[in-house]
Amino acid sequence: MNHLSSVKHVIVILSGKGGVGKSTMAVQIALGLHAAGKKIGILDVDLCGPSIPKMFNLESRDIHQCNEGWLPVYVDKDQRIGVMSIGFLLGSADDAVVWRGPKKNAMIKQFLSDVYWQDVDYLIIDTPPGTSDEHITVMESLRGYNPDGAILVTTPQAVAVGDVRRELTFCRKTGIPVVGLVENMSGYVCPHCAECTNIFSKGGGQALAEQTDISFLGSIPIDSNLTLSLDTGVNILEANPRSPAVRAINHIVKKLIALDKDLP
Amino acid sequence: MNHLSSVKHVIVILSGKGGVGKSTMAVQIALGLHAAGKKIGILDVDLCGPSIPKMFNLESRDIHQCNEGWLPVYVDKDQRIGVMSIGFLLGSADDAVVWRGPKKNAMIKQFLSDVYWQDVDYLIIDTPPGTSDEHITVMESLRGYNPDGAILVTTPQAVAVGDVRRELTFCRKTGIPVVGLVENMSGYVCPHCAECTNIFSKGGGQALAEQTDISFLGSIPIDSNLTLSLDTGVNILEANPRSPAVRAINHIVKKLIALDKDLP
Repeated sequence: MNHLSSVKHVIVILSGKGGVGKSTMAVQIALGLHAAGKKIGILDVDLCGPSIPKMFNLESRDIHQCNEGWLPVYVDKDQRIGVMSIGFLLGSADDAVVWRGPKKNAMIKQFLSDVYWQDVDYLIIDTPPGTSDEHITVMESLRGYNPDGAILVTTPQAVAVGDVRRELTFCRKTGIPVVGLVENMSGYVCPHCAECTNIFSKGGGQALAEQTDISFLGSIPIDSNLTLSLDTGVNILEANPRSPAVRAINHIVKKLIALDKDLP
Repeated sequence: MNHLSSVKHVIVILSGKGGVGKSTMAVQIALGLHAAGKKIGILDVDLCGPSIPKMFNLESRDIHQCNEGWLPVYVDKDQRIGVMSIGFLLGSADDAVVWRGPKKNAMIKQFLSDVYWQDVDYLIIDTPPGTSDEHITVMESLRGYNPDGAILVTTPQAVAVGDVRRELTFCRKTGIPVVGLVENMSGYVCPHCAECTNIFSKGGGQALAEQTDISFLGSIPIDSNLTLSLDTGVNILEANPRSPAVRAINHIVKKLIALDKDLP
């Protein structure tokens, strides 16, 4: 797995619960770090529900092989954001990956060993919900590569926060450091009357971060511009730089860069 | 697995994507069928992220054993809604189930064979996101028990609809019939100005149902009453019978009962 040795930072996006915005965070953090001049790799290990290709509008693209291994699919012409996902290996977007654990583990190990990332500053690993095969395999494979750690994503509801508590136990059991927690879908500003409603409750993420003594990276409001941008593969940071979600994302990315003491 | 032979209907709640409202649907459909006089069992096979106990406010409860097997935990005094979940077997709500596939499969098989449901009309099986171990094991174990089939849940976004297309492929591959599709989080009515916004896009579920020739069961709007009821374990059908989500749920339950030609 020596391709990983040239990667400066590895960040794993985790959440016990599905649909809280892990892939959204992976994409937005990647775009934010890219806008700050960093070179990025994104590895999508959600084998049964790969969303990253669609979110970058890369669905029809193929993976190519070179002498060094598999080449990621690049989002931009300058090849500063590269993506690897099982989505690129499926014949059709409707194909279901009906695999039990051992087959999934083998695929993830191959992704971690064979993809030729080429000196990326940040490798962001997007995971499926849960604390099972995919997660155990990623954590075991990253040992020895000194990953920065995990960013946990939650929504404010008690049900989601409960799942993140379990994910935190998982991080402690598997020995991966926690970079911090992001609360997604925190409040919705009505575009008609500009009043904010906490559709999915409020503050659960921040309270959890305080209780468990982990860093709170920030809250991202519900923003239909963000949903739309991810459905169409548009870079919202460029298309809609003043939207509430973008301001929140930029804030989180700044915190991440501030954590990086190894780079100038 | 002869405890399953006394179950009249088996419905599996599926969605490729997480966080679209599978557990919410499982709970609301159970409550709706219960209000219509049916006896209900709910089996939660989301081993890494069990939400059902919290949604019924049963978190501190324990499973008891009788001569016939494990007794479900009952929601009501009349024992007309029984729940089985790994949540009842964990010491603390923070405990993470860090299990690979084979251990998960063994647990699910035990749930399917050892729980003494006692003549329930409907057994509703809530699943984790994806198309992997848990789903394959459930489908294999249900063969021979003539399950009614799967209810697929999606949100309107393209990303979620894509995952449901894959789940549909899974149903066809494993031979489970599709009862129909529910679109959750379809539009949000602002409580301040009463204007409706399609936060997560609109109509993706209905369009998918038409394209793939499966039954569209209905749309459920975003409703903070519903989120709150599930965080606190309150029965929204009784607490808030006129809320928009409850009207939509009642509509879906009526369709399900209409499908049932075996019962008077």
